[in-house]
Amino acid sequence: MPRSEKKLIRQIRRLAPPGPSVVTGIGDDAAVLRIPAGHEILVTTDFTIEGVHFRRDWHRPEIVGWRCLTRGLSDIAAMGGEPRAAFLSLALASDVPQSWVNKFLRGLLELANKFKVPLAGGDTAQSLSGIQADIVVLGSAPKGKAVLRSGARPGEHIYVTGNLGGSASALARLRDALPLAGEYSRHLRPVPRVELGRWLRKKSMPSAMIDISDGLSTDLEHICEESHVGAEIDAEAIPRARIGRGQRFVDLDYALHGGDDYELLFTSSRRVPSKVAGVPVTRIGRTTRAPGLRLVDKDGTMKTLKAKGWEHFR
Amino acid sequence: MPRSEKKLIRQIRRLAPPGPSVVTGIGDDAAVLRIPAGHEILVTTDFTIEGVHFRRDWHRPEIVGWRCLTRGLSDIAAMGGEPRAAFLSLALASDVPQSWVNKFLRGLLELANKFKVPLAGGDTAQSLSGIQADIVVLGSAPKGKAVLRSGARPGEHIYVTGNLGGSASALARLRDALPLAGEYSRHLRPVPRVELGRWLRKKSMPSAMIDISDGLSTDLEHICEESHVGAEIDAEAIPRARIGRGQRFVDLDYALHGGDDYELLFTSSRRVPSKVAGVPVTRIGRTTRAPGLRLVDKDGTMKTLKAKGWEHFR
Repeated sequence: MPRSEKKLIRQIRRLAPPGPSVVTGIGDDAAVLRIPAGHEILVTTDFTIEGVHFRRDWHRPEIVGWRCLTRGLSDIAAMGGEPRAAFLSLALASDVPQSWVNKFLRGLLELANKFKVPLAGGDTAQSLSGIQADIVVLGSAPKGKAVLRSGARPGEHIYVTGNLGGSASALARLRDALPLAGEYSRHLRPVPRVELGRWLRKKSMPSAMIDISDGLSTDLEHICEESHVGAEIDAEAIPRARIGRGQRFVDLDYALHGGDDYELLFTSSRRVPSKVAGVPVTRIGRTTRAPGLRLVDKDGTMKTLKAKGWEHFR
Repeated sequence: MPRSEKKLIRQIRRLAPPGPSVVTGIGDDAAVLRIPAGHEILVTTDFTIEGVHFRRDWHRPEIVGWRCLTRGLSDIAAMGGEPRAAFLSLALASDVPQSWVNKFLRGLLELANKFKVPLAGGDTAQSLSGIQADIVVLGSAPKGKAVLRSGARPGEHIYVTGNLGGSASALARLRDALPLAGEYSRHLRPVPRVELGRWLRKKSMPSAMIDISDGLSTDLEHICEESHVGAEIDAEAIPRARIGRGQRFVDLDYALHGGDDYELLFTSSRRVPSKVAGVPVTRIGRTTRAPGLRLVDKDGTMKTLKAKGWEHFR
């Protein structure tokens, strides 16, 4: 192991917040963890890759670190789970300055501290080129209570939390080399909906749930495929992000297909309050027996909604 | 998500062995797992990076896949744990042919099946260049029984399993573009010592344990640092791998500093049988109150043993 890696591990070990789930953290062959009796374990892993998920010339390292952990916490939120510990595997090319790494860790640990999630381990390696980070988040939920993608039934309501399209719109501004005002940069630091997901699970509200990381259309398709249902979405009902000084709504396409918002999308046979844990919850459509996704305009015209897989830089 | 990634996920989902710990596997926001009541969770993550841990022109893809999972299983073995599920995050550049991926998965799943470890999730991504794989293995051990690196005391025996230096010697042969006979290629497919580690833990034999991934000298240093002890190793006692048609012993340097053997190194106050679960166990030295590592020659001369961090291609 090169000395720089050893230094990095020591640095993470020093900065990582402790947590009650961690019996033995960084510095052994494996971390040792405990979760409450009667709980099941949730595990999610997400890559963050330079040139694919971020660009060093566009994204500040604090933001890359924050978003790296957001991806994992958001997956646990989408199961209605409680995050217990995170693990970071980080590969760095030799041209990545230590200051970049410090700021990356600062951003990641800021979010870890916010949710009291200890960094319990991981791996460091030299990369031949660029930066590759893999975040693992381990969580838990009471036995049999984790919310899956596969539980939706025809005739249920479809809900979404917060608003959509802000992250894709901010990214478009970065691509056009336009300055990012506060409103935009907020969209680059999405807060995973952990409290909201947990509240919904406790109330047994959602029949199926997913987080919106690939865009509304793609993630809705995931629920529909796993649950064997179709969906109709009311275009007018989709809560669009407002951006810039003028607080104008983002284009519908950003809200439909833009990724990285990390809001929750879920189905329920029940009426859900319009605000949960301080976050708006909006009914945007209904599940159907007929397969496929459809978009309904304000004049009632229905057209096929195609899931456009979100890719950051294309 | 590009279509090719979706295809890859489907492929893994189809090929992955099922397992009793997995409630919900690939295809949701997170996997849902169960471990036996009274057990603690073990988690380890390990990168396998093209150009750092393997070279596509040297290592067959089946071997890369096998070794990728070996790294994780070996960490669980070093805790005396039971592997429960694996997660694979795989980033591939667009020039990596599907046939490479198929063979890589075949090698990885061959080992997964051997140890009945289900592949319960992971992530796929496009990489800008090369191949990056991160393997996560989740295991378990009875509460308070996982074997740490930090439990060694002065005056204990130091043991090693199997023999050392085979992997480094085979790698040197690859580097020199020499053909690999069966004896060598066996060293490129190390079998993690899961049964042996579990047996030792059940018998409460080891006070501290680690797997030899970075080389004997470096991994012994890890135990010594975490346990605040020193160590004396008898050069003559180190079990060296035999290679090639002539079955000659590898050079001492390979056995002392070569990585990737995935044998277990442990300390114990007790006498351990010379064979456990069909694998030789050899006493190679003792822990000391005086810090640092020392190597004792056959004539009794003692010299400082420097931990030479193992790097694959330097």
